[in-house]
Amino acid sequence: MASNHAPYLHVRVADTIRHLIEDSTLKTGDKVPSVRSMSRQAGVSISTVLQAYANLEADGVVVARPQSGYFVSPLAASNIRVPDRIFCSELTPRPAPAFNLWGSIYESATNDDILPLGLANPKSELLPVKGLARAVRQVLNESPEKCTQYSFPPGEIALRRQIAAQYYLRNQDVHPDDIVITSGCTESILLSLKATARPGDVIAVESPMYFVLLRIVKSLGMTLVEIESDPVTGLSIDALARALDSIKIAAVICIPNFSNPNGTLMPDEKKRRLVELLASNDIPLIEDDIYADLYFGDARPSSCRDFSVNDNILSCSSFSKTLAPGFRIGWVLPGKYREQVIQHKRLTSAATTTLSQLAIAQFMQSGAHQRHLRVLRQTFKQQVFMLREAIARYFPKGTRISNPKGGFVLWVQLPAGLDTDLLAERAMQEKISIVPGRMFSASGQYANFLRLCTGFLWSEEAEQGVKRLGEMIDEALCQGQNPPLS
Amino acid sequence: MASNHAPYLHVRVADTIRHLIEDSTLKTGDKVPSVRSMSRQAGVSISTVLQAYANLEADGVVVARPQSGYFVSPLAASNIRVPDRIFCSELTPRPAPAFNLWGSIYESATNDDILPLGLANPKSELLPVKGLARAVRQVLNESPEKCTQYSFPPGEIALRRQIAAQYYLRNQDVHPDDIVITSGCTESILLSLKATARPGDVIAVESPMYFVLLRIVKSLGMTLVEIESDPVTGLSIDALARALDSIKIAAVICIPNFSNPNGTLMPDEKKRRLVELLASNDIPLIEDDIYADLYFGDARPSSCRDFSVNDNILSCSSFSKTLAPGFRIGWVLPGKYREQVIQHKRLTSAATTTLSQLAIAQFMQSGAHQRHLRVLRQTFKQQVFMLREAIARYFPKGTRISNPKGGFVLWVQLPAGLDTDLLAERAMQEKISIVPGRMFSASGQYANFLRLCTGFLWSEEAEQGVKRLGEMIDEALCQGQNPPLS
Repeated sequence: MASNHAPYLHVRVADTIRHLIEDSTLKTGDKVPSVRSMSRQAGVSISTVLQAYANLEADGVVVARPQSGYFVSPLAASNIRVPDRIFCSELTPRPAPAFNLWGSIYESATNDDILPLGLANPKSELLPVKGLARAVRQVLNESPEKCTQYSFPPGEIALRRQIAAQYYLRNQDVHPDDIVITSGCTESILLSLKATARPGDVIAVESPMYFVLLRIVKSLGMTLVEIESDPVTGLSIDALARALDSIKIAAVICIPNFSNPNGTLMPDEKKRRLVELLASNDIPLIEDDIYADLYFGDARPSSCRDFSVNDNILSCSSFSKTLAPGFRIGWVLPGKYREQVIQHKRLTSAATTTLSQLAIAQFMQSGAHQRHLRVLRQTFKQQVFMLREAIARYFPKGTRISNPKGGFVLWVQLPAGLDTDLLAERAMQEKISIVPGRMFSASGQYANFLRLCTGFLWSEEAEQGVKRLGEMIDEALCQGQNPPLS
Repeated sequence: MASNHAPYLHVRVADTIRHLIEDSTLKTGDKVPSVRSMSRQAGVSISTVLQAYANLEADGVVVARPQSGYFVSPLAASNIRVPDRIFCSELTPRPAPAFNLWGSIYESATNDDILPLGLANPKSELLPVKGLARAVRQVLNESPEKCTQYSFPPGEIALRRQIAAQYYLRNQDVHPDDIVITSGCTESILLSLKATARPGDVIAVESPMYFVLLRIVKSLGMTLVEIESDPVTGLSIDALARALDSIKIAAVICIPNFSNPNGTLMPDEKKRRLVELLASNDIPLIEDDIYADLYFGDARPSSCRDFSVNDNILSCSSFSKTLAPGFRIGWVLPGKYREQVIQHKRLTSAATTTLSQLAIAQFMQSGAHQRHLRVLRQTFKQQVFMLREAIARYFPKGTRISNPKGGFVLWVQLPAGLDTDLLAERAMQEKISIVPGRMFSASGQYANFLRLCTGFLWSEEAEQGVKRLGEMIDEALCQGQNPPLS
């Protein structure tokens, strides 16, 4: 795995240029530093800079002009605006809309004929397949009997220790007994809801919100109220406070770090305000923190739980975005709801697969986990940049794209009037999977939005897929196939 | 694994004697056929008969008298009556009672200091540990990438094909697409309930009923009505018909084969009546068929699904009682509720562990599965006999014990007035796990019942544990520590 370390130098150089463009220090058409001066500034070899610039050119960030050097591409995504803030004018609880393309999103996970732009899962080419297989073999050799036996909640102590150690690394005092292992983050959220609310209760969610979570709430006979979200900083605390004044809310679900779908990152100060608001109202916060480890910056962002004052936060996560979705291992820090979460786990899946738990514990203990995460973050950072570039290049003028600082999900706003339900159906006819915006609303909002993901290794085929989506959007706009603005 | 086949002859001989005792052809004190005559009758060698009789003696079924031969032991369980039929006089839905020893039952699964008489799980000494480990390694070698990836519902086709083949072997026409893989039978039942009923609905269950299923119903905000059960043939169809006349029932849960806890086996004619009654009322039947493969007789009993007339049965099972509870693999044949079950599976655990699914498919394909089941059935048959004998020997006169024809669970009725909640607490102080009867009722019935299981390899220690339980019961009866009969 020499590739774990070798690419860092040229990636770092390319990132410097990207940051200068994002900061608007370098604007469209500006000349980027010469190869020679960059080599001197960055203290790296000429060939490293050439490699970095070649990659940037391939990504469409810069263009080379013969005899003159490299210039910021007019297609660089720096001028693309993030999506609008959509006001959730109605606070009345509503049922979530039905959706008939759901099966096709999942199909794209296993059907290689489909371009999985709709799927927020890492494909195996981005995952430490060999390391995990080695860990499984080692566990099988050491304790084959144990693998056949139940691992009842809270789950394997070896894995809980490794997870606690991750929190410890960022100065969070988490004891292994504070952790309950689950069969993935979906189950973590389900158990958290069951532990804190009952059928008929109202659950407040930031909007837009990951469609599975909306539907879990509905499946439990609970109702939803959508709280609007700032396109950069996430859930509006003011809007939530207003909702609390007018509706009895049993729990709040929020994705503070690199929210799915809109990629927002809640600043620490806002996290603190959110936690305090809910603590003073004695309302539990269910935090979906599954993307937090996939940050593009220097350090992992805080979780809301870090600011907890009364143990009233259930912080949910999993290894499905970073290690192996097929292993089905997640966890929850349930705070004061530990006993309720454990009881409901017994009534949901009884226990979590033993071998998966032990293998991930083994993999983490070997140190391979941190190395893998470092590489994966760089990969996603580059891929999100490339997907964003491709959208900017091929989608109509006026398209807005989220600019997340982590994860691998983009939230795209198309011209008003365009119906992405129709677009998703049309795209699936050509084996391209996308998720239409309405999926992320409990009240049919976001009809002209869509979610695109890059959980696979970026390729010319993906580029062509985005291009083809752009053509479909153009056709829809020209032919007026979409319903008029309501 | 020579032991797979060699023991059959002497086991068959011993079974013949056991049957003669059960039929009351041979009574306490009667002489059993001489070794020579049995050898001739059964067409086996003298040494095989000697081995059979020695085992029977070790099990307490016969006693040897020097120069005279073997005689039916006064302790043989043939005269022990099965528990009473308890009439569920009230049809009013009630909440399930709380229970505070639940954690300790689960603890006995992993804590080797506890004698797990309460745990209805096979321990690894009874499971094909090596064969499963080999299957896991083979899958890892052949498709390591696939193991990291989601296996969305309905689940891996390789496994669904193997399961369908099992049904095919007993002339049931099941297509792989009729099967949805789950994370164990608990999830199968949960999904079946979610697919057929909503919060507030009433679910009818046979009584006594496996405590986890009672609590799943409650956790979904549904209410329970208990239908009485015949101690030999299971759920009373007449009582169910009366309930249907007076209450609107959304679904019925039944364990027709070797019911947990009372071991009943519903005859085919009764299964047919049950299916027809529910079909004519258009009420779905949720069938927990998890013990069916563990029959002691010549053939697997039918499932209610075999008699289906309108596709309104959800038949649930898993590999947790036969292969490896820790692998967390079950399935459901959801009939016409397939789409709903798949939708709810996405909202419960998203997917089932890929490696577990592929490994079990591999294990089944190798033929090892059928061989393993043959051995396991014999083992459980012997062990249930031995546990029953030990209870008969050490528990007070008047104790009644179920006499199941499959599985590894016994339902024990103690003298009226004895409180098994107290007994369970006392037993746990001495590291013996049992499950008190009230756990199996939604309305606090069965206070003088308990469930005992033999999912571990029978041992002198287990014998001593049962003896100690008997002493505790005697103490409780003598000291009048129990509340008076209500």
